[in-house]
Amino acid sequence: MLHPFDSVTDVEIVITSKLLKQMHGDACLFFSQIDRLEPIKSEAIKYLEAERYGGKLPWIPRRTYAYYYVNNQMPLYKSIVNASEKRVESSKPVPGGAIGPLQPDGMAAVEIAAVDHPIVKAEIAKLQLEKLSFHHPQLGKLSYKVICEPWMYGSDSPNDKVPLIQCYMYMGVDHPDSNHYSIPLKFSPVFEYLTKRFVRMDYLPSGADEKFIKETFPLHKVDPIVEYHPELIEDWKPRDGLKPLQVVQPEGPSFKVEGTKVTWQGWEFRVATNVREGFALYDVHFKGRSLFYRVALNEMTVPYGDGRPPFHRKQAFDLGDCGFGNSANSLALGCHCLGVIKYLDTRRSDARGNPVLIPSTVCMHEQDYGILYLHKNYRNDRSVVTRRREFVVQTIATVANYEYVVNLVFDQAGAITVQVRATGILSTMPNDPNTVTDFGTIVGPGVTAAFHQHLLNFRFDTRLDGDKNTVVYDDYMPMDEKLPHNQYNVGFRQKRTFVDRSGPVDQSPFTNRTYKVINENSINPVTLKPVGYKFEMPAKQMILASPNSYNVKRAHYATKQFWATKYHDDQLYAAGEFTNQSQKDTGLSIWADGSEDVRNADTVIWATLALTHPPVTEQFPVMPSDFLQFLVTPASFFDKNPALDVPLADNNFNRSVYYDDSQDAASSTSGCCQPKV
Amino acid sequence: MLHPFDSVTDVEIVITSKLLKQMHGDACLFFSQIDRLEPIKSEAIKYLEAERYGGKLPWIPRRTYAYYYVNNQMPLYKSIVNASEKRVESSKPVPGGAIGPLQPDGMAAVEIAAVDHPIVKAEIAKLQLEKLSFHHPQLGKLSYKVICEPWMYGSDSPNDKVPLIQCYMYMGVDHPDSNHYSIPLKFSPVFEYLTKRFVRMDYLPSGADEKFIKETFPLHKVDPIVEYHPELIEDWKPRDGLKPLQVVQPEGPSFKVEGTKVTWQGWEFRVATNVREGFALYDVHFKGRSLFYRVALNEMTVPYGDGRPPFHRKQAFDLGDCGFGNSANSLALGCHCLGVIKYLDTRRSDARGNPVLIPSTVCMHEQDYGILYLHKNYRNDRSVVTRRREFVVQTIATVANYEYVVNLVFDQAGAITVQVRATGILSTMPNDPNTVTDFGTIVGPGVTAAFHQHLLNFRFDTRLDGDKNTVVYDDYMPMDEKLPHNQYNVGFRQKRTFVDRSGPVDQSPFTNRTYKVINENSINPVTLKPVGYKFEMPAKQMILASPNSYNVKRAHYATKQFWATKYHDDQLYAAGEFTNQSQKDTGLSIWADGSEDVRNADTVIWATLALTHPPVTEQFPVMPSDFLQFLVTPASFFDKNPALDVPLADNNFNRSVYYDDSQDAASSTSGCCQPKV
Repeated sequence: MLHPFDSVTDVEIVITSKLLKQMHGDACLFFSQIDRLEPIKSEAIKYLEAERYGGKLPWIPRRTYAYYYVNNQMPLYKSIVNASEKRVESSKPVPGGAIGPLQPDGMAAVEIAAVDHPIVKAEIAKLQLEKLSFHHPQLGKLSYKVICEPWMYGSDSPNDKVPLIQCYMYMGVDHPDSNHYSIPLKFSPVFEYLTKRFVRMDYLPSGADEKFIKETFPLHKVDPIVEYHPELIEDWKPRDGLKPLQVVQPEGPSFKVEGTKVTWQGWEFRVATNVREGFALYDVHFKGRSLFYRVALNEMTVPYGDGRPPFHRKQAFDLGDCGFGNSANSLALGCHCLGVIKYLDTRRSDARGNPVLIPSTVCMHEQDYGILYLHKNYRNDRSVVTRRREFVVQTIATVANYEYVVNLVFDQAGAITVQVRATGILSTMPNDPNTVTDFGTIVGPGVTAAFHQHLLNFRFDTRLDGDKNTVVYDDYMPMDEKLPHNQYNVGFRQKRTFVDRSGPVDQSPFTNRTYKVINENSINPVTLKPVGYKFEMPAKQMILASPNSYNVKRAHYATKQFWATKYHDDQLYAAGEFTNQSQKDTGLSIWADGSEDVRNADTVIWATLALTHPPVTEQFPVMPSDFLQFLVTPASFFDKNPALDVPLADNNFNRSVYYDDSQDAASSTSGCCQPKV
Repeated sequence: MLHPFDSVTDVEIVITSKLLKQMHGDACLFFSQIDRLEPIKSEAIKYLEAERYGGKLPWIPRRTYAYYYVNNQMPLYKSIVNASEKRVESSKPVPGGAIGPLQPDGMAAVEIAAVDHPIVKAEIAKLQLEKLSFHHPQLGKLSYKVICEPWMYGSDSPNDKVPLIQCYMYMGVDHPDSNHYSIPLKFSPVFEYLTKRFVRMDYLPSGADEKFIKETFPLHKVDPIVEYHPELIEDWKPRDGLKPLQVVQPEGPSFKVEGTKVTWQGWEFRVATNVREGFALYDVHFKGRSLFYRVALNEMTVPYGDGRPPFHRKQAFDLGDCGFGNSANSLALGCHCLGVIKYLDTRRSDARGNPVLIPSTVCMHEQDYGILYLHKNYRNDRSVVTRRREFVVQTIATVANYEYVVNLVFDQAGAITVQVRATGILSTMPNDPNTVTDFGTIVGPGVTAAFHQHLLNFRFDTRLDGDKNTVVYDDYMPMDEKLPHNQYNVGFRQKRTFVDRSGPVDQSPFTNRTYKVINENSINPVTLKPVGYKFEMPAKQMILASPNSYNVKRAHYATKQFWATKYHDDQLYAAGEFTNQSQKDTGLSIWADGSEDVRNADTVIWATLALTHPPVTEQFPVMPSDFLQFLVTPASFFDKNPALDVPLADNNFNRSVYYDDSQDAASSTSGCCQPKV
């Protein structure tokens, strides 16, 4: 029997699309998205309690949601289907003319239609590609081709009532791995997403201001392509000397996966893939104590700082517009992670409502990451040393040019590191020779990469020691200099502030402001204060666009780093349920308006991880991972270090060896903390 | 023949102490510190140029410095010895009554003398330890003992003219691994460091204010000890299920170490241990281009926020007062790092001037840390994936209760991560029952840990593409809304500011301020701007004590995160050469006073890494590593990604396996990017 948190199944996708097709008679349905609907929390909690403490499991029907268009026209429909009982619970047009998320098949179709459209063909013809070729020393003569990169249209007015696609056009050599981002062309057709109707041809500015000329990329100066693939890099030679480093687990892994249930080193949770978020964790416990009901990356917006039309509309909502699960990479052994690997799959619906398998979208594995803790009694040189073993849940999404590596990393002491790596290829624009701007970086001949930001939001549905939690923040400040116990003016103290109403908390790095979730009903017997977990987030620049810009109206969550709201079913995504071409945020701007009491309540945390990204040449043609991360760690939640039961490090266990070969096997496998003298 | 950067040798230590003893006739010399003196940079540069580009190596004599006292009296002497020519170049009392760094042997001697002193014995007698015992279920009957923890005295007045030691007293069971920090006693004798003369008995406050009673720890309430060692934790059981995870390098490591010269994946540098800093890197190059002349952690101060005398004097300068090399752990195979490990040793002088070997104080090894870069062409699912291999230079210092793990981590794309882990045991104070304060955390029965800060300073002697470098900082701000190329108000731009004079740069996280070192004489052919490296440091709270406190006067460097000075020989340590009981900073407060031009000059960077540390219960009795780090990464220094020559990931190389056993060997060793379907 399926667990309420298990991912959607092929059967459920088919049931859903079939029921809806029947309901709409012989109309043509275009499915934007089908996935499992989250169970009602109050019911799920009963289920989890029965699961954990015994008792009869309550019956929770499996339900799905579907977004679809009828006969390729607005409006967008949203339906809720009870898959267990095979019936449509509800189905109606989404109010307000909301536009649905983009469907991978739909994007591919636009890509094909675009290059096939006579007006686009006419522009391409001007390139006279047939007269062009490139001689590659290893691959010989390569011809050129044009590539269409369809983009979500974004927003700059309330007049765009139908789904649109902005096609950025590039040129590459005729090889599947050619880096077309190296040669952006200067024309950009706009199409209707559903009908493939041609809307308009935009021409791109390539200077320091908004001006452009209606020119296609001129034939006489094709810049050399900066390629990233070894096959295409001329005279590529591998860097010398990299020897294998293998992660070997002779006795197998330390984790156990049963269905969606994962257990590792005191941690217990469920992990389920979905098309929008990639994956979500549920019912997270450590050492038998409840921490979170649900944890997931729920949105990311990527606004560009290039104000020149049409670039001003470049604002992706990678989860809401595209879906991280839809965009997930199929991860491969020994490539995306090392060791003993457990993979999970994602299932999505195609435009016709048929299930599509995306294999191995989530990998789970262990890694060693140095020292967990150590202490040496200097009086006798006796030490305790433990290694930090980590458990990683990883997914990787490719959203057109960019890749995002999302890692939730668990340690043995109750801490979670939320780590995101940004990699892949910069989104590029054509650049006139010797044109230097203050909003972009020239990353190759004739090509520039505009400054932009990545603003990710992680939702933590907290459940520390129970359903009622409170958000506080602690500041650290000098003691009053007149205090008798501060006569030397060195003292400093903690000041705690309670968050009573739903809303954001401002950043304050210079008071070392620390956000915490506490349970006022659960007092730590040692500190005599409520137990808690802290969210350690570095102070960051939030969204830079003007408050009166569409970028900010659509992504209100990106204006603050930390938010608290009261739990409500269906409040899952920071920028709202529908982001594609949205006019405004329908998420935290409404839910975190201060109208609800969040103290000692069913509280949800929304943490925004921000990166302002002015590109550098080292990030082209493909960028080494840029790291963003924050920590979620116990803050006097346990009565002492919960990792005191971790066995001490020992080389009989870890089997490391000395650099040179002079030492004998005995010493190289001796127990711990016997240095080589 | 020794290289100018090679660590001091036993012979050089002996030559130094012998020459000075001869010079002082039959006086008794107490050596505070002997080590190699840095070569004069202008000479060393000539040597490095000859080494790299050919030509005769200039002769650079090996020189040492020595700090010592004559007949256990002030003043402190400083001598420079030419070890190559076996002659004393200079020797004189240090002006201003400076006090020398603490000598491990000297501290041990005080520890013994203290518990042996009649007045201290009288206090201990009141404990009636003989009537006390503890029954341990595994170890049986254990008696109690008193432990003395000698502390640097710190400063609170100009009247302390001789070296002093504050002895904090603790109680533990009679076992070498007992956690005495769990039972702090309430009396604290002060001794003269050199003569062991008793100065005064302090009694410790244990309430919410400065008041104390002259009571020794009362017999009738010995709190249970919170132990950290498995042998002492009652009924300790190892956590289930941790299976071996072994780092195996069947073909050996990818790095080469010849003497002090290290080469790895395009990196070249020298690494040498020393007693004050632990180690320093020299002549750092990547892919044949010069980056830094010298890199080292040069100081750390740990001021406590507990204003109650005598705790107000708790301000350690772990490098200046004690020495990270002096305090270094001897690292062991499979414990402090995994894989194929190369170790380096440290040599120090004892109080009599004899060499002492501290084996394996630095370990060097490789680790895998996930994905370096990847991109998938979503049109055909073809990917490039490279693994991020790292090279780590690590040292670990134990300064009484605390441990610091210092890692300099190199990647394959020209970036350095400076990472420090704070672990070990919190410095504790006695705490009255049910006494909760706003400046400390109760971490166990009768024991509290005061809030404190760790402020580390890393010195980068920059040499990007040559001797003349410039410090700039870039801020990111919205474009003017009236600009024609910002009509939709989404644009943002970079504003660059040059640092012309020596001094600090203020933090500005909300403009995403980024510190950079550039070379104005070396223009990047792609960006058409000067090449550079950036220092990515999260915004942090700096030292919290009042500007008129001794804590701040002594550690001016800790008031700002980032400093630039002009290079001068002998300007190595941020708080000055002599920190023990110092009255004021003699480092950056003088060198970074704005009096020197640092633009396009021989510039030195001083980066302060700060952590405000309010303890939590999870950090007792031993704390899981707390991480502090910053990144030093190329910022348009190279013309493109310098890691394009890294071979693509491949499971024939990495040999990972699937979680379950159902798959066949073939698929588990297939090449890269073939997901399991």
